[in-house]
This record gives sequence, structure tokens and C-alpha cells, in this order.
Amino acid sequence: MVLGLGSGSTVNFMLEELKKRIQNGLNISGIPTSKKTEKLANSYHIPLTNFEKHEEVDLAIDGADKVDKDFNLIKGGGGSLLREKIVASTAKQVVIIVDHSKIVNQFKNVTLPVEVVPFAWIQVYRQISNMGAKIVLRKSGDNIFSSDNDNYILDCTFPYIKNPKQLHTMLKMMVGVVETGLFIDMADYLIISNKNTIEIKNRN
Amino acid sequence: MVLGLGSGSTVNFMLEELKKRIQNGLNISGIPTSKKTEKLANSYHIPLTNFEKHEEVDLAIDGADKVDKDFNLIKGGGGSLLREKIVASTAKQVVIIVDHSKIVNQFKNVTLPVEVVPFAWIQVYRQISNMGAKIVLRKSGDNIFSSDNDNYILDCTFPYIKNPKQLHTMLKMMVGVVETGLFIDMADYLIISNKNTIEIKNRN
Repeated sequence: MVLGLGSGSTVNFMLEELKKRIQNGLNISGIPTSKKTEKLANSYHIPLTNFEKHEEVDLAIDGADKVDKDFNLIKGGGGSLLREKIVASTAKQVVIIVDHSKIVNQFKNVTLPVEVVPFAWIQVYRQISNMGAKIVLRKSGDNIFSSDNDNYILDCTFPYIKNPKQLHTMLKMMVGVVETGLFIDMADYLIISNKNTIEIKNRN
Repeated sequence: MVLGLGSGSTVNFMLEELKKRIQNGLNISGIPTSKKTEKLANSYHIPLTNFEKHEEVDLAIDGADKVDKDFNLIKGGGGSLLREKIVASTAKQVVIIVDHSKIVNQFKNVTLPVEVVPFAWIQVYRQISNMGAKIVLRKSGDNIFSSDNDNYILDCTFPYIKNPKQLHTMLKMMVGVVETGLFIDMADYLIISNKNTIEIKNRN
């Protein structure tokens, strides 16, 4: 079984659990969605593979920054949105683990990360600003943040995203935009934690 | 005046001419579309600028690999399609200089370069193959070719591109695709050389 290994603090708990199960005989290999996850998986002795060897991921497990009522996700707070999306779009099933505070009815006043080619960042910044978003070029300390793919991230705060799919298409079609943090029609299951309870929701 | 400086052998002649005119007092600054053009422009003492300083390009001059009857272009043979497209999409006017052998009625059996994120290349390769294209991952000697933006190029040969705009949209929307070599609704003027004659065509 090929597992997509998400990125971020929530997923790290999952990797720890996976480590234990592999020690007890579980036979899986993982495709990591970030260099951080790759490093952590290596330290846990989780066997890794890649898309050259496998066309599909059986199951991808990841977190999210926001989830709306239609299972649309906003991801990319950790900066790994592109690899996460490649893995999710290749997975037969996608499971998203979130804290209940991430669940919203609609995307209002949310920050959407957009991955852009460095050469084009300011032109994309100007275009998205004209759409009414407030934008910050992501920093890492004093430097501009660089993604695992050596691109920049624009954190775009929109007052209200009425139609997530339409917004994603509009942004992705811009010259210089590599990917957006909007994951549409990708999550199959949500695992929502709330204090001492866990709720599982299925999209279909 | 801000000039977009294209890339490739045809454009190199233009840069030489520009060098002479600047020596004779012409006052322009250029935004180069590739590291190669940047280097050449520097050696010719052509003043350079960037998008941080200028929102727009007044005039972009570039070449093309193929041009159809509707002024749609295929570019990217030299591997600079992304920067070329950013400059062209920001330019008030775009002039394309080509040899008459590049002019075709429709795009039949042509090779379209598609710039992809290295992590995703094989997944994009599989998707475009399923659309009926023959694809080669571009090499540079024994190594995989790397664009100025550190991405890979898939050279995709399609038997017939019936609707260039639709194909561009389909490809650009794929997760992992950064940009395609199809330049739609961008060229304003064509300068076509044929032995000892030059023809100038205007799209409007």
C-alpha cells in the first residue's frame, strides 16, 4: 500500500503512530509531501517511494488550515501546498485530519496561500491586489520564504471567497502562478477532533 | 521606454542593433526574458530594469517557434517560455520576429513545450500522454534540462491542436504544470522575413 504522507503538526502525530505500526509489521511505503516530512519519515524508518515507481497513491493523509461545509480545503500555511496537492490529486482516497477550530461554513476573511514563480511575484501580487485581496509576500525571518520547489508564497487574505472553484481557476490561470492552496473536490473523509471526541465525516 | 527583451537567435540580432542605437543616444531600459539575454544585454551595455521598478513593459520584442493564422504562438524551444510569457502578458504591445518557415496555417504535428515542477513531472507526463501526445523530457547533454526557474520542460508533440486556447487551459490547470508554450492573444505584430523581403502584419 502506498501512503501519501502529509505535512504539518497534525500529521506528525500520525507519522509517530505509523512508526509504531511498521515496527509491529505493517507493510506500507510512503510518498512525502515535503522535505520536512521526508526527513521525519526517514528518522522514523518509514519506507519511502516516489512517483517514478508508483503511478498512484492508495491513501493520502494530511491536515488543512480551513475546511468549508463542502469539504473544500485551504492549505499551504506550512508552505507545502504544491506537493501536497500533487499527492492528493493522485490519491484514490484523501483523509484530512483537523481540529474542529478549522471547520467553517464558508471562507470568510481567510488567508489563501498562492505559490508563484519568483521572477513573476510582483506582477501576480498586483493582479491579485486588484481583485480586492490583502497580500503579504511570505517571509522566513529576514528572508523571503522559499518553498520546497524554490518558489515564493503570497498569503492572500480575501474578505469572502464566494466560489472557491472559480477563484482557484482564475488564480491558477495567471501567468506566474504555480498553484493555489484551494483544494477542491479532493477530500473524501474528514477526521475532526474536538476535546475528547473524534468525528468522522464522509463526503459522499 | 521599457522594452521586453526576448530570447533566442533572432532576438540576438535585435539586441546587437539596439546596442548601436543606444550608443547613438537611444534612451530605453530592458527587462530580459532569460538569463542568456540578460548576460548578452549586459555585455552590450543595454540598461536593464525589472518589475519591481516598472509595472508595465511598453513594447516586448521576441521570436517564436511556430505562428498560426490567428497569431497564436508556440514558444519555448529555447526553454525560456515562462519569463517570455510574463513579459509578453505585461506588455502594451508585443512584436514577434520570425522567419517565414515558422508560419503555419494550423498547429499540426507540432511540439509544444510545457514547463513543470520537477517533483510532479512524471505525473504530468502520464496525464498528457493520455491525451494522445508523444512526450520527451527535455535533456541538456546527459542531464535533465533545467529552466531559468529550475523547472523541467516536457516537449509534447500533438498530431493536431484544434483549439489552442482550450488546450492551454487544460494543461495549465493540471497540478504541477507551471506554464505552457502556447501564447494566445498576445502577439500584436508579426515581422516575417523571407529571403530579401520583410512583411509586417498587424493582428487588429
